[in-house]
Amino acid sequence: MVPHLVTALSGPINELEQRILESMPAIERWFRLEWMEHTPPFYSAVDIRNAGFKLAPVDTDLFPGGWNNLTSQMMPLAVQAAMAAIEKICPEAKNLLVVPDNEIRNTSYLSNLAQLKRIFHMAGLNVRLGSISPSIKTAKRIKLPDGDEITLEPVIRGKRRLGLKDFDPCTILLNTELPAGIPGILEELHEQFLLPPLHATRAIRRKRRHFECYEEVAKRLGKLLGIDPWLIHPMFGHCGEVDTASADGIECVRANVDALLTRVRRKYKEYGIKEKPFVVVKTDNGAPGLGAVTVRDPRDLDAIVKSGKAGARSLPTGEVIIQEGVLTHEHINEAVAEPVVYMVDRYVVGGFYRVHAERGIDEDLSAPGASFVPLAFEESGRLPQPGVKPGASAPNRFYMYGVIGRLAMLAASYELEATDPSAENDA
Amino acid sequence: MVPHLVTALSGPINELEQRILESMPAIERWFRLEWMEHTPPFYSAVDIRNAGFKLAPVDTDLFPGGWNNLTSQMMPLAVQAAMAAIEKICPEAKNLLVVPDNEIRNTSYLSNLAQLKRIFHMAGLNVRLGSISPSIKTAKRIKLPDGDEITLEPVIRGKRRLGLKDFDPCTILLNTELPAGIPGILEELHEQFLLPPLHATRAIRRKRRHFECYEEVAKRLGKLLGIDPWLIHPMFGHCGEVDTASADGIECVRANVDALLTRVRRKYKEYGIKEKPFVVVKTDNGAPGLGAVTVRDPRDLDAIVKSGKAGARSLPTGEVIIQEGVLTHEHINEAVAEPVVYMVDRYVVGGFYRVHAERGIDEDLSAPGASFVPLAFEESGRLPQPGVKPGASAPNRFYMYGVIGRLAMLAASYELEATDPSAENDA
Repeated sequence: MVPHLVTALSGPINELEQRILESMPAIERWFRLEWMEHTPPFYSAVDIRNAGFKLAPVDTDLFPGGWNNLTSQMMPLAVQAAMAAIEKICPEAKNLLVVPDNEIRNTSYLSNLAQLKRIFHMAGLNVRLGSISPSIKTAKRIKLPDGDEITLEPVIRGKRRLGLKDFDPCTILLNTELPAGIPGILEELHEQFLLPPLHATRAIRRKRRHFECYEEVAKRLGKLLGIDPWLIHPMFGHCGEVDTASADGIECVRANVDALLTRVRRKYKEYGIKEKPFVVVKTDNGAPGLGAVTVRDPRDLDAIVKSGKAGARSLPTGEVIIQEGVLTHEHINEAVAEPVVYMVDRYVVGGFYRVHAERGIDEDLSAPGASFVPLAFEESGRLPQPGVKPGASAPNRFYMYGVIGRLAMLAASYELEATDPSAENDA
Repeated sequence: MVPHLVTALSGPINELEQRILESMPAIERWFRLEWMEHTPPFYSAVDIRNAGFKLAPVDTDLFPGGWNNLTSQMMPLAVQAAMAAIEKICPEAKNLLVVPDNEIRNTSYLSNLAQLKRIFHMAGLNVRLGSISPSIKTAKRIKLPDGDEITLEPVIRGKRRLGLKDFDPCTILLNTELPAGIPGILEELHEQFLLPPLHATRAIRRKRRHFECYEEVAKRLGKLLGIDPWLIHPMFGHCGEVDTASADGIECVRANVDALLTRVRRKYKEYGIKEKPFVVVKTDNGAPGLGAVTVRDPRDLDAIVKSGKAGARSLPTGEVIIQEGVLTHEHINEAVAEPVVYMVDRYVVGGFYRVHAERGIDEDLSAPGASFVPLAFEESGRLPQPGVKPGASAPNRFYMYGVIGRLAMLAASYELEATDPSAENDA
């Protein structure tokens, strides 16, 4: 199934597409040189918003949980990239242990695990799923709706290694952000590769740091392309601890919202954009459910705080990031959609649309009720078609998404280097 | 278009398929470890014959000229593999110079050049075609039947580098075996990467050496799989200079044909195969057109020599290799077919069937009149489907072809190491 692409095709995005296509060899070379100096995350998924006048990543997931949404046509690419990834890390590996979330959210997540297992099995590894949940005491077989079956097994922790009964992996692949914090069972595993590293999990990772790194690489790519980096970068501000009971906490958010809206308004004026600017307030550590709140006016903050509503629409507490809101002008049928780009190592391997029929074009789509539609991958897939009129070719649009996805992945690699506790401090 | 797969599904090949599928992680790991020690050829294409009871490569081309036969669905894989290849060789490269055959055989070869250019352009290089033919004195634009257009430009040789006007490549990619020998213009280019290396061209390469290396790796993979390596290896003999005017030359061929037929007969008996054994006599340096002659009985040699027929069906002169004939039991519609596997670096990126309506199942199909049909690449493409009954799944069959293709590529890497004139001699 190929979605009907109905991006609002206003001017600037087509110029950007044109510029990106023309610069393809230069862009690819730039990435090649970056990957000589920096290590890409093992895998990643980037949410992208295409506003028609700008295109920007709004979230970079280092523990992607939607592998089941890739179509079978995308699988050979994923397997080939997985082969390249393994070869770099542990070529002599026989076994890979995948550690899933303790809390199994839904059968879709289980299908994701089955697909992940399939990809790495085809890349040449024996793959098993090792749960660190205290509730998994014996092997648990689970049938999936599509007829697949997976088995969750309890991990066994030795003095220096983690494994299963009769299964000693070279690499342990986390498919969980470890929302409850880093458990002792995953610490001090110095003999094995634990990927992504623990400092990529929610206990340590901060969105703000990611977007600082993204701003840096977006500026450099912008320079290469000769464009205003704002066209590919969402501006942002940051507050420390926000306590909704404290006036100081709210004041910091309000000041940041106000300042950011002013900056966005200026940019909209510069580009003659008639849309209403908005910002999104999110928790800095990426805890979901606490919600990303859309704010169009600083005065709305009082109402949001006063309403005291719990759950998804109340103001998040803890550290918050205030990010420039990027509209999504992509629709599939009547529903608002945003592309999600999936990557293994430094390669784009596929993607899909996240679609939410009940959300607006300025709202977070990563919420209950979202569904997924494969990206158009017919014919030359993610490969650009030089010479086609900008805005008229799905593969060209997807090539552009792949560039922005990889740019966010590159930012993540800078971010993980900066936060690596085992790194030597050169300063 | 997906060909109807009508391999004769006799017992042994299905057991082999089963064994290969079950051993997938072990096979992939084995290749990973081999590629740690050995450098794969830049690109390669392997002709495979599936006799129903055995499966073997019969030719390994290190200058593949049929890239245009890959479908657009295979292109993302080819591009991804090309990215990996470039990254290893010359990550900082901006420019790639492709050197084609001096003699442009047909428009299909030109389409091949256009496709090769497209693949490496999408992998992030500026690609131009530099002819070393004395007849190309100025840039020559050629329109292709499919609307594509290519430009052949005359190369410019500096003291230490080869390039075009205002185009200095990091890597020079040969897409020609250099049938007329190695020209001085390609020698002493120590500042650039010249790939494949000159010792892979026809002046130096010998089929015999390739199949000696293949025999070695086939034995080792056979051991890993617990199978008789004969099931994946064509036996062979070799004669030095053969002069059809000299009785000695013919006698060597006859003795080898006789000995090899006896060995094949013994194997057929062991496996209860009712087919009539045959051998193929080929030039050792792979010069085409001189023909591969099928011999079913040593006494036929006299007739072949006496007939004195010039051209494709006469006995080749020079050094010859006498190779066990491997039937092909694959047909597409009524025509005899053999799979050709295309690889870039260490990755299988696609393939197609070479089909020849006028040739028999024991004859060389690489001859005028051959046509090309894409390999089935629908759904999971070259990815195996565990659990499917052997012989019933096209992807499983193609995974097996990919394993044999890569085995021949591995043999080529051993071969090129052994013949590298710049290598240190450790002995």
